Amino acid sequence: MKRRTEFDLIETLFAPLARGTPEALNLEDDAALLIPSPGLELVVSTDALVAGIHFHADDPPELIGRKLLRVSVSDLASMGAEPYVYLLTIVIPPECEESWLEQFAAGLARDQEAFGIHLAGGDTVSTSGPLVLSLTAVGEVPAGKALRRSGASEGEDIWVSGTIGDAALGLMAMQGDLSVLGENDRAALKDRYLLPQPRIGLGAALRGIGSSCIDVSDGLAADLGHVCRASGVRGEVQFDCIPLSEPARTAMTADPHIADSILSGGDDYELLFTASPKSREAVFQAAANCDVKVARIGQMLSGSGVVILDAENVEIAVTTAGYTHF
Amino acid sequence: MKRRTEFDLIETLFAPLARGTPEALNLEDDAALLIPSPGLELVVSTDALVAGIHFHADDPPELIGRKLLRVSVSDLASMGAEPYVYLLTIVIPPECEESWLEQFAAGLARDQEAFGIHLAGGDTVSTSGPLVLSLTAVGEVPAGKALRRSGASEGEDIWVSGTIGDAALGLMAMQGDLSVLGENDRAALKDRYLLPQPRIGLGAALRGIGSSCIDVSDGLAADLGHVCRASGVRGEVQFDCIPLSEPARTAMTADPHIADSILSGGDDYELLFTASPKSREAVFQAAANCDVKVARIGQMLSGSGVVILDAENVEIAVTTAGYTHF
Repeated sequence: MKRRTEFDLIETLFAPLARGTPEALNLEDDAALLIPSPGLELVVSTDALVAGIHFHADDPPELIGRKLLRVSVSDLASMGAEPYVYLLTIVIPPECEESWLEQFAAGLARDQEAFGIHLAGGDTVSTSGPLVLSLTAVGEVPAGKALRRSGASEGEDIWVSGTIGDAALGLMAMQGDLSVLGENDRAALKDRYLLPQPRIGLGAALRGIGSSCIDVSDGLAADLGHVCRASGVRGEVQFDCIPLSEPARTAMTADPHIADSILSGGDDYELLFTASPKSREAVFQAAANCDVKVARIGQMLSGSGVVILDAENVEIAVTTAGYTHF
Repeated sequence: MKRRTEFDLIETLFAPLARGTPEALNLEDDAALLIPSPGLELVVSTDALVAGIHFHADDPPELIGRKLLRVSVSDLASMGAEPYVYLLTIVIPPECEESWLEQFAAGLARDQEAFGIHLAGGDTVSTSGPLVLSLTAVGEVPAGKALRRSGASEGEDIWVSGTIGDAALGLMAMQGDLSVLGENDRAALKDRYLLPQPRIGLGAALRGIGSSCIDVSDGLAADLGHVCRASGVRGEVQFDCIPLSEPARTAMTADPHIADSILSGGDDYELLFTASPKSREAVFQAAANCDVKVARIGQMLSGSGVVILDAENVEIAVTTAGYTHF
């Protein structure tokens, strides 16, 4: 393999991702220069992925690039922010092939166009250990309008977008489980795991309507727990109100234990948010405008913690504290 | 070792670093919220350090924390920006002790106060490989006033702050070389390597005076090369004008090959900048106001590349392309 330098990599792989982005300063300087528009605040979120832990070394590099970007964009969406620029740090082992990096960059190129976000800077260093990918996404939100985890109050509705649990089931399908499902269903679930769909439009539409928001990355129960802890309230969810995809429903009918994966699996990157019962119509309207389905799954009570109830109002034990990336 | 979770680490070690920083949102959300002041732009710089490559696993953790922060703050200084907040990503191997992280956080705590910058967010993940520390620093600069690498013109003076080469000699002293020097001199050089002094005040004072600026991290010759490439000019430096510390001068007298380490060694984190000859008095005044010494070491010519001349105007070959962190 030809000897590559940081400068080569930046020039051949990453400079094209920054082309036309004035904030990147042509990647010539050691920093990006952000020019915030008047009246906007900046949301900054960092996510790191480690080979062998957060992704498999033989996953398609293009998909890894796309998922890395989408996960960070989802963090922006969960605060009601719109994508602006990102910084990328790559920690590269000697055995990492140039072609891997090329395909990874191709994945970034494809999705940065799709989500309206562009590379503005970063760092490239070598390591003796596994590949580490760290992405810092910057989004813009009107001053004072960012959605937070801490804004939920007693009496408010709990909502989620899309369907829940598909990503966890997709991971199971990739590991050879869920043989009860047909090939198309399994493929659809895998796709949910590999290529999350950040809810940028919905996050922005919920500004001024939602009282709190989070993206479902650690699992529904765990992420609702984060909101409850930050807001000082208790979350009560009716399991039967949680929106499920057809494949997930089929899998759960065949094996009721799948319910646990639905509650504790992560990586759906749907939005979980709260709003006053007076805002129900506004929530449905905001979601319809973005062509996203939303469902009311429970309510916030006084107290602390999370409780999930079945159709007989009996508490369902969630056996893990949520899928944790650590 | 007790089992730790990402949440434990954030609460015990990192939340204290974010206390009193509204941008951190109590580290409750997955992102920081930056509220840029009107008329200011944000400079964002990311640096990653890998154990065994950029630092030794048995270096004092407090010093590693301080150097990591200082290196990023120096990037802000080189663009004339003043420190605002930082994000920290830590990629932790299982064998990393809690006490290591505590001392690392103590180093950050000490220097973030000294440099007026505070933790606002980040990520904590595990790895099977070496510890990776990645810091993203955000600084503020008046709109349109950021110093860039690309602003140098033919006919301008080349300046540096402080003394050059001490950090490279400090690394040599740590490796047992430079026995010609006394213990005090060796200690002073090591200190330059371990604890760089970011030139925040000088960077800010040079806004409107300097035409280009960079911090000397890859080595004087390499960093001047970056400026020349970005600006489309040729840099000519008189070696005898490069300011040296007494220990560096003593070492070079004993071994003339030390000159090469001075030109190509990195990690000094002094500022290298250019300015019009008409601004000489303004440069000296700006530096004096910050209590920093500056020296004029050469000039920009038409053409490209870097040439270093000795006292007889003969070109000195620089044997490496500069200390590269990759």
